[in-house]
Amino acid sequence: MTVDQLIHQFSNSGSFGAGRLSTACNVYEKMVRDQECTIFLALAGAVVPAGMRTLIADLIRRNLIDVVVSTGANMVHDAIEALGGHHYRGHWLMDDMVLYKHHIYRIYDVLVPEEDFVKLDCKLVDIYDDIAAKSKGESLSSSMFAWELGKRLGDSGSILRAAYESHTPIFLPALRDSEFGYIHYLHARRRGFKDALVVDAFKDVREIIEICRNSERNGMIVVGGGVPRNTVQSAALATKSGLDYSLIITMDRPETGGLSGSTLEETISWGKLKAKADRVMVIGDAMIILPIIAASVIERLGDSFKRAPKRLARNR
Amino acid sequence: MTVDQLIHQFSNSGSFGAGRLSTACNVYEKMVRDQECTIFLALAGAVVPAGMRTLIADLIRRNLIDVVVSTGANMVHDAIEALGGHHYRGHWLMDDMVLYKHHIYRIYDVLVPEEDFVKLDCKLVDIYDDIAAKSKGESLSSSMFAWELGKRLGDSGSILRAAYESHTPIFLPALRDSEFGYIHYLHARRRGFKDALVVDAFKDVREIIEICRNSERNGMIVVGGGVPRNTVQSAALATKSGLDYSLIITMDRPETGGLSGSTLEETISWGKLKAKADRVMVIGDAMIILPIIAASVIERLGDSFKRAPKRLARNR
Amino acid sequence: MTVDQLIHQFSNSGSFGAGRLSTACNVYEKMVRDQECTIFLALAGAVVPAGMRTLIADLIRRNLIDVVVSTGANMVHDAIEALGGHHYRGHWLMDDMVLYKHHIYRIYDVLVPEEDFVKLDCKLVDIYDDIAAKSKGESLSSSMFAWELGKRLGDSGSILRAAYESHTPIFLPALRDSEFGYIHYLHARRRGFKDALVVDAFKDVREIIEICRNSERNGMIVVGGGVPRNTVQSAALATKSGLDYSLIITMDRPETGGLSGSTLEETISWGKLKAKADRVMVIGDAMIILPIIAASVIERLGDSFKRAPKRLARNR
Amino acid sequence: MTVDQLIHQFSNSGSFGAGRLSTACNVYEKMVRDQECTIFLALAGAVVPAGMRTLIADLIRRNLIDVVVSTGANMVHDAIEALGGHHYRGHWLMDDMVLYKHHIYRIYDVLVPEEDFVKLDCKLVDIYDDIAAKSKGESLSSSMFAWELGKRLGDSGSILRAAYESHTPIFLPALRDSEFGYIHYLHARRRGFKDALVVDAFKDVREIIEICRNSERNGMIVVGGGVPRNTVQSAALATKSGLDYSLIITMDRPETGGLSGSTLEETISWGKLKAKADRVMVIGDAMIILPIIAASVIERLGDSFKRAPKRLARNR
Repeated sequence: MTVDQLIHQFSNSGSFGAGRLSTACNVYEKMVRDQECTIFLALAGAVVPAGMRTLIADLIRRNLIDVVVSTGANMVHDAIEALGGHHYRGHWLMDDMVLYKHHIYRIYDVLVPEEDFVKLDCKLVDIYDDIAAKSKGESLSSSMFAWELGKRLGDSGSILRAAYESHTPIFLPALRDSEFGYIHYLHARRRGFKDALVVDAFKDVREIIEICRNSERNGMIVVGGGVPRNTVQSAALATKSGLDYSLIITMDRPETGGLSGSTLEETISWGKLKAKADRVMVIGDAMIILPIIAASVIERLGDSFKRAPKRLARNR
Repeated sequence: MTVDQLIHQFSNSGSFGAGRLSTACNVYEKMVRDQECTIFLALAGAVVPAGMRTLIADLIRRNLIDVVVSTGANMVHDAIEALGGHHYRGHWLMDDMVLYKHHIYRIYDVLVPEEDFVKLDCKLVDIYDDIAAKSKGESLSSSMFAWELGKRLGDSGSILRAAYESHTPIFLPALRDSEFGYIHYLHARRRGFKDALVVDAFKDVREIIEICRNSERNGMIVVGGGVPRNTVQSAALATKSGLDYSLIITMDRPETGGLSGSTLEETISWGKLKAKADRVMVIGDAMIILPIIAASVIERLGDSFKRAPKRLARNR
Repeated sequence: MTVDQLIHQFSNSGSFGAGRLSTACNVYEKMVRDQECTIFLALAGAVVPAGMRTLIADLIRRNLIDVVVSTGANMVHDAIEALGGHHYRGHWLMDDMVLYKHHIYRIYDVLVPEEDFVKLDCKLVDIYDDIAAKSKGESLSSSMFAWELGKRLGDSGSILRAAYESHTPIFLPALRDSEFGYIHYLHARRRGFKDALVVDAFKDVREIIEICRNSERNGMIVVGGGVPRNTVQSAALATKSGLDYSLIITMDRPETGGLSGSTLEETISWGKLKAKADRVMVIGDAMIILPIIAASVIERLGDSFKRAPKRLARNR
Repeated sequence: MTVDQLIHQFSNSGSFGAGRLSTACNVYEKMVRDQECTIFLALAGAVVPAGMRTLIADLIRRNLIDVVVSTGANMVHDAIEALGGHHYRGHWLMDDMVLYKHHIYRIYDVLVPEEDFVKLDCKLVDIYDDIAAKSKGESLSSSMFAWELGKRLGDSGSILRAAYESHTPIFLPALRDSEFGYIHYLHARRRGFKDALVVDAFKDVREIIEICRNSERNGMIVVGGGVPRNTVQSAALATKSGLDYSLIITMDRPETGGLSGSTLEETISWGKLKAKADRVMVIGDAMIILPIIAASVIERLGDSFKRAPKRLARNR
């Protein structure tokens, strides 16, 4: 049985999560077939450490995603792998004091050696220097910064690299909150806190708003929620018409008032999502759900399907 | 029965959540009585819309919190109230299409009129102009920006104002991801995208790292998690010894790998929390849990207790 | 600050969970002041191991609860304590293989020695023999069985004892699914599987339906959900008008279709709850929430308040 | 891409939920290939209303499940469909007051017309009469009752029918807590509460214990938890060695102490699961997860694989 055949069974007879998942596949298929739609992928949570890096890089290269909005941390881990580091499968019951002594970091059941972070720090401090030199005092937006990194990472399986090569904008609205921030501190300290690279926190606001405004339609796929979901929704609000499609995968619930668990109906009240938008929220672990949706939709599209690249960025 | 008497009952005979809550009160009491400890409050989720603004401003003024790290959105809502706007109690089953037509935004069971956002936009665009004028091309850190706002808000119940008046640093690591971002767009557009206010995304990294390094001990109280929790933990890592106390209130769970649900044991593997740290994670709605902890600890401290202000910021 | 003062603050300014909790106190106060209302307490989850036994026995003796519907396991643990056994505070990270070797059972962070179960088995096998002898081949309902146990337990802090002494019906719809079932096996085996005590699975259906039908109004307080919630709701349906009040404390969510997380609105569609019923679902740990509600409402009622006992059971 | 190919990808590179799901497929495959293992399926939650009836009946007929332990409600819904009733796909945002007026019951996004329940009541009251007549005053166990129902339901897609035909024991430990209880009330009332059918609550304890004891090895698959999970685990404890395999699909979490969310490590402390047992808990919606596991394992087994039926029941 293929993945899409299973989804069709869910579509015929499944309720609760199964019904939502089959709807999610329909919503993503519709977004993809709508060539006038700009598809935003908002990534929170430990998507890259969990092993979804290649899937996402692949979706970017196939133009099945047009814009990425991510936490800094996911791109940190993308860069770690691009520089030869690894994420290892451990166990959630491992003794963290022992791990600490052995300089191994744990993300639930994934392990990352501290030395991979050290290697990243060393390498990126130089890259920051290089970017600072090239930018000649001009501040960068988070998306310009992301492409500058992608340009300097050789690994074709990297999200940053794939985004750079395919001209896919990649926004990092909380860039500072990740190892990228600490690396900036190292970089700046080395220069006596003078003439360090400047990323202007607000500079990408205009960029993402203009992408939304220039698109006929906008769609959003969210993993988790948090800052990335909010960034896409805010940009969509600024278009004065709201998103046309929305697909969210989350484990959060609405009652405590956080954005990540808020319903898509709530989003409609803000005008960030059209009342008639195709929408669905799947309650589940994105590491299971997102690959299923991707496999099902790619199966539906068939080999001959091509989605045209968007030329969203004004310049490079 | 007083709140603290209830907590003492939990301490004697309560298990599961009740045991965790009584431990949480002990941890916070210990942090507060440790005058050498710098207490960080990390705020994610819709804490301010839910009505906890006055409580937090009060904790800041009593020096029971030394540093605030928040999402932009919470400070946006703080500013809305400071400018005369309101959060109204609605119901989670209200019809969002109707709300949309009436220009009322919903956050679970809280309602905010669109006009309060419009008022905020108008007022803050001018304030941004003013800050830009005063800063004369110099970029600001997020904490400098927060104090500039606090300086210009007259409301004594405001978190931003309380932080400004009491010299309490307030970091907004994802500042751009909130109405503050859209307001910057309005401000910059009005100036033809020239000479707009610059907030340097990385500038506060050094500030928060130095606060951690200069403190004898560091403690963290987290509501929700997300970017604010990560920001504090990363700063603590940079001290090379990790946090001494940690108290987290969250509804997230660890299995999906997101930071907000990750256990404090996991945090130890990273060196962001000492293995011997007093720590506890309470699974529950912070709008219930945080006021209970505050009431219980304030009752324990008694009227005569005073906590000395910290002079953490290098300059103003 | 007293617990009820805190709840009044929630009532004025709290949203999300705080708003729900203040509503919950109002709903319970209303139920209690409505002398024509029969109040059902439905207990699922490890309420007794967590230390809430005395609170519940106290509510029963004050007539603030009129009927109890419980899982078998909670009454098993009630009997364990009545027979001198204990629940100890352990830690959720203890090594279960070590506990197993030391014959210690773990319920999250609560520990029960196996020997307390052995003692229970020995003692109750004799009690079963005695009940069987007294009942002379007549089958019992689960509530008759519960009273027979209560009659034979001397501990005044026991829920079973309190229910027996105060003529409070106590239904155990899944009686068999607990140590009570295994004890029955021991009892029956000792008799060569002849003339063992018979509890008629269906016999209490009529009893609980008639209690509902004979009550002017019916109210339900639920901890967790599961079989106890369903049992009360089904009885209420049989009255053809549904419950008048409902207060649920749960951590479950509705999307996966289980009863414990289903909304009270859903319950209305079945006619098990009146459309105009006072109702609220609090999302949280009952070990925290239920004591708060009880403390707040008892404070409101004051010392002089008396609630009349109901004479619900046809005979003893 | 087939479902099992996707699972193999998860096995190679997936963490968090994806890793757990791939482990779950391995555990079920191992159970199935172990012909000496008795496989228990414990069903809580609205599995049948959600459309998984045919899947489960199919697993029973293929001998991929040896024993079923279920809530009463799931078998009620199984009987409703066997008698021509239907579960319709609705929406979770439907107005429950309107549904109530139209006599339509809602289970999250599934709708059941009241008339299907009425039809069930009418039909089953007669069947109860018939069973009572045949049993001549002898009490039944829940599993004998389930087979008596299965014998009288003609629908080959029915779980009750499949269990009856394939000699698969089916235990209903909380039988009374479902429409089966109310139907018994109707049946008994029609007879003036005399000579009604008696289901002995404890009679199936011996049956399930002996199945466990007579099996070389025992394995458990749990949907949800609750009474069905507890029933299987208790029977396994009575064997004095515990389960050899365990696979749980749940959305519950451990911190509040309820059984449904308790970890399998906790189960080991009780001796209900062997310390070396193959085990995994998947956090997710069973309506998605269970069909994936079934599809993946059936694909692995191939067409030629046959699993021998067990002859577990002593008599019929």
